[in-house]
Amino acid sequence: MSNVENEKKIQPLTIAGFQTLIAEMYSDKDAARGIDGTFMWLIEAVGELAGALRQGSREELAAEFADGLAWLVTIANVAGIDLEQAVRDKYGSGCPGCGQMVCRCDLGEKP
Amino acid sequence: MSNVENEKKIQPLTIAGFQTLIAEMYSDKDAARGIDGTFMWLIEAVGELAGALRQGSREELAAEFADGLAWLVTIANVAGIDLEQAVRDKYGSGCPGCGQMVCRCDLGEKP
Repeated sequence: MSNVENEKKIQPLTIAGFQTLIAEMYSDKDAARGIDGTFMWLIEAVGELAGALRQGSREELAAEFADGLAWLVTIANVAGIDLEQAVRDKYGSGCPGCGQMVCRCDLGEKP
Repeated sequence: MSNVENEKKIQPLTIAGFQTLIAEMYSDKDAARGIDGTFMWLIEAVGELAGALRQGSREELAAEFADGLAWLVTIANVAGIDLEQAVRDKYGSGCPGCGQMVCRCDLGEKP
C-alpha cells in the first residue's frame, strides 16, 4: 500500500481512530511492556518534547508532539481506557471548572 | 446549550477538533501562561496520571488521561503545532521504525 493510500485510510483522524491505529501497530509490544514500562517511554517522550520546545526545528517539534500523543494513547490502550470518550466526558460540555465553552475561571485556577 | 447538544457538536472528535475546542476554551489563558508555564501543567497532569494508574478508579483514570491530552494539545496550541497533522506525518504510513502497519521492530527498539 502506498503512503498516500495509508494516509487516506486514516482521514479524518479521530482520537479513537489514532488509538486503534496505535493498538494495531504496537499491541503485542505494549502488552509485553505493561503499564510501568510503557509509562517510562511516555516520560522519555515528554522530556524530548521539552528539548524540542527549547531548541528544536518545527519538524522535530511536530514529531515530538506526535510521539507524546502516541505514548499517551499507548498507555490508554494498556489500561483499557477509551481516550476519546474520556475527553468528551471531561471537556465535551465545557470547561470542567466553570462549565463554559470559553473558560471564565481565574487564571491561577485549574485547569 | 444543553450538554447533549454540546456533545453532539464535537462528534466525531478528531484530534484537530479537540485541539480547536481547547484553543477556543482556553486560548487567552494559554497565551498568558506561555509554553513554560503550560508545560508545568502538563507535567502535573502526567504525575496525576501516574497516581491514577497506581490506585485510581476507572473514572478518575479516564479523567487523568483526558487532562493529559488536554495539556498536550494546549502546548501544541501555544507552540503553533497541528497535532493531528503531526501524528499523521509520523504514524500515518506505518511504524516510524520499520515502516509496517503492524510493527516488526525488536521489543527493545524504539518506539
